[in-house]
Amino acid sequence: MAHVVSPLAPTLFPDMPEIAGVALAAAATGIRYKNRVDVLLAIMPKGTTVAGCLTNSKSRSAPVDWCADGLKQGRARALVVNAGNANAFTGKAGVATVKAVAKAATQLLGCIQAEVFQASTGVIGEPMNPAPIVNALPELVKSASASSWNMAANAIMTTDTFAKMATVKAKLGGKTVTINGIAKGSGMIAPDMATMLVFIFTDAALPPKILQALLTKAVNPSFNCITVDGDTSTSDTVLLFATGASLASKGLKSAADARLKPFAKALDSLCLDLALQVARDGEGAEKLIEIKITGAESDKAAHKIGMTIANSPLVKTAIAGEDANWGRIVMAIGKSGEKAIRDKLRIKIGGVLVAAKGMKDQRYNEADIMPHMKGRDIKIEADIGVGKGKACVWTCDLTHRYIDINGSYRS
Amino acid sequence: MAHVVSPLAPTLFPDMPEIAGVALAAAATGIRYKNRVDVLLAIMPKGTTVAGCLTNSKSRSAPVDWCADGLKQGRARALVVNAGNANAFTGKAGVATVKAVAKAATQLLGCIQAEVFQASTGVIGEPMNPAPIVNALPELVKSASASSWNMAANAIMTTDTFAKMATVKAKLGGKTVTINGIAKGSGMIAPDMATMLVFIFTDAALPPKILQALLTKAVNPSFNCITVDGDTSTSDTVLLFATGASLASKGLKSAADARLKPFAKALDSLCLDLALQVARDGEGAEKLIEIKITGAESDKAAHKIGMTIANSPLVKTAIAGEDANWGRIVMAIGKSGEKAIRDKLRIKIGGVLVAAKGMKDQRYNEADIMPHMKGRDIKIEADIGVGKGKACVWTCDLTHRYIDINGSYRS
Repeated sequence: MAHVVSPLAPTLFPDMPEIAGVALAAAATGIRYKNRVDVLLAIMPKGTTVAGCLTNSKSRSAPVDWCADGLKQGRARALVVNAGNANAFTGKAGVATVKAVAKAATQLLGCIQAEVFQASTGVIGEPMNPAPIVNALPELVKSASASSWNMAANAIMTTDTFAKMATVKAKLGGKTVTINGIAKGSGMIAPDMATMLVFIFTDAALPPKILQALLTKAVNPSFNCITVDGDTSTSDTVLLFATGASLASKGLKSAADARLKPFAKALDSLCLDLALQVARDGEGAEKLIEIKITGAESDKAAHKIGMTIANSPLVKTAIAGEDANWGRIVMAIGKSGEKAIRDKLRIKIGGVLVAAKGMKDQRYNEADIMPHMKGRDIKIEADIGVGKGKACVWTCDLTHRYIDINGSYRS
Repeated sequence: MAHVVSPLAPTLFPDMPEIAGVALAAAATGIRYKNRVDVLLAIMPKGTTVAGCLTNSKSRSAPVDWCADGLKQGRARALVVNAGNANAFTGKAGVATVKAVAKAATQLLGCIQAEVFQASTGVIGEPMNPAPIVNALPELVKSASASSWNMAANAIMTTDTFAKMATVKAKLGGKTVTINGIAKGSGMIAPDMATMLVFIFTDAALPPKILQALLTKAVNPSFNCITVDGDTSTSDTVLLFATGASLASKGLKSAADARLKPFAKALDSLCLDLALQVARDGEGAEKLIEIKITGAESDKAAHKIGMTIANSPLVKTAIAGEDANWGRIVMAIGKSGEKAIRDKLRIKIGGVLVAAKGMKDQRYNEADIMPHMKGRDIKIEADIGVGKGKACVWTCDLTHRYIDINGSYRS
């Protein structure tokens, strides 16, 4: 499963600061890959609150079910993640596996099972033996360190070609708090409430309800606005842990409190940063495509139109071929099912108006946008002309490498 | 635009009988391709009735708008089709083009403009000059013959690798009537009411209302149940012309009349035959995939689940790679948004039960279905276990050739 690093990978990765009380460790247990870290343990201090957004899939994985239960009480002490096996569609055996892992962690950390959050990513439908993880846990607890963010981000990768990390700081209650996030995701990406796996940690002190409100708001315009292949995963999980170590923000009663604005803004930008890293590592991606929709009937309609363009194989292959085939954008808008009036559409590529008034713009000359089409970052704008709804979504092109990766993923 | 013939092409094509009064001709006008027939003229006798199903796209083409108007009066004397330019998103110029073609045809045939049906397929957004068609019409009228079905089917192809034809006979009013159909379609196939271009001719005598009811019923389980890439075209058009030459079926008042049953059944089977020919010529197709859904909440839910599996790039690339990755079928069912209970799903591939009770079936051995995966015809069955809804849909696999074809279609 060796992959060349995506040509869209960021050139600079952040230096991840420590989050007081959070310790991380990873191990190579051979669940699927040999000689590659594949299990992550994150230990959180007592008092850590948690919020999460999970896949809306009707066939969600055993760890997703487990997290949904744990989120009800909103407290966390540990996170255990493995790559290589999704523990999805594994029946009773899958439930037994998450229970065994939780039990082992509670014995080592002195917490309750509902405080042990879990996520798994990899092949669907293969029974997953808990032993490699259970056996690795004692050493993971011993070796956990506050600085192992890079290794943590590496341990959760599958077809990812680079480890995804982001960090931001925000003022909260007169103090400065830190938010760190790591993510994985490359294929089966069309998040519906959340993307593949994203773990965010902060030293802010926030009750679960407020944390959940902030996370849900941050997830909608970020992870819910990216797609690689339109295929929503069984395992999508975003978890946000707040240790409270900074003692910041005590006494907040609602997510709408004005004092939360800088924190919310920082969380939003961190989620968008990580979401774009996932899109940039789309399986086989050669180009990142930004699709801005304006003038739709509603924001929801704009999102659907944007995602319909982003998921169109014909649009994605044209962009892979560096072909400014805007007729396919017209096609995708037409098929979205949302209100659109053909003769009011305005379509721009790379900032250049290509179509308006129901036809190609008179001044448009395809040669003008060829340099843009040959670049790594493709910008598409479509004004639907029927209202004020807007959205911005991101995807990548559809290349031969996507087929290579997915025609032989299990072999 | 030369293509190797699809490996899924039928090995035998029907010998198309004549339909009394219907004459066909084709010409190479160089609209887009050189030295290749690209314009079809079909002439129908006086009294011919017509029914049609057109794309639900919000950005439909000028010829589709034109047909929608013509269908209101339900009479047809001519059909003019061109390949190479879709005349879609071409504004006022596009409307002027269909009018110019209609005017030229009426002068030659002595009919009214609303009786001249038109369809165009090819690039979207390029203004289309009517002159090549208008100039070719006199010679087309002269050379039209009752036996040119093969040439007619060839004249409407774009990325198609074989000409699609089917013929059936049915008893109606004590006589035997014939139904001939031709179709084109290979990419941008996810029909919503109808597929790319399908033209059906019969010598039955049926009023437009009955004809429309029969066609709509036939289109739903055939053309509306195939997908190549999930991309609904701007130009989808199915037209059914009934010349009445057989004088069969005079006096029928309703599509529900029991005497229509053999005809309706024959029409249904012809539509399914043509729809499968389109799926078999899916761009880059190496395998035809049949997906049978049972036990869904409703037929509509079953159709949506089937189409979600059929449009999943991960399912399609796995099948291209001859990988029985049934976990991706579970994923697609989960993301469809329709009611599903993970632990009640039953999935079969090639007739072999692979998953049930929320996990891989105990007796399932992947080696058993490898011969099936290596074949040309892949059969997937999923019982959702929540109701009695059922549907059957068809698609093809997603291969490198799809990307080759669509990364450079316009160049």
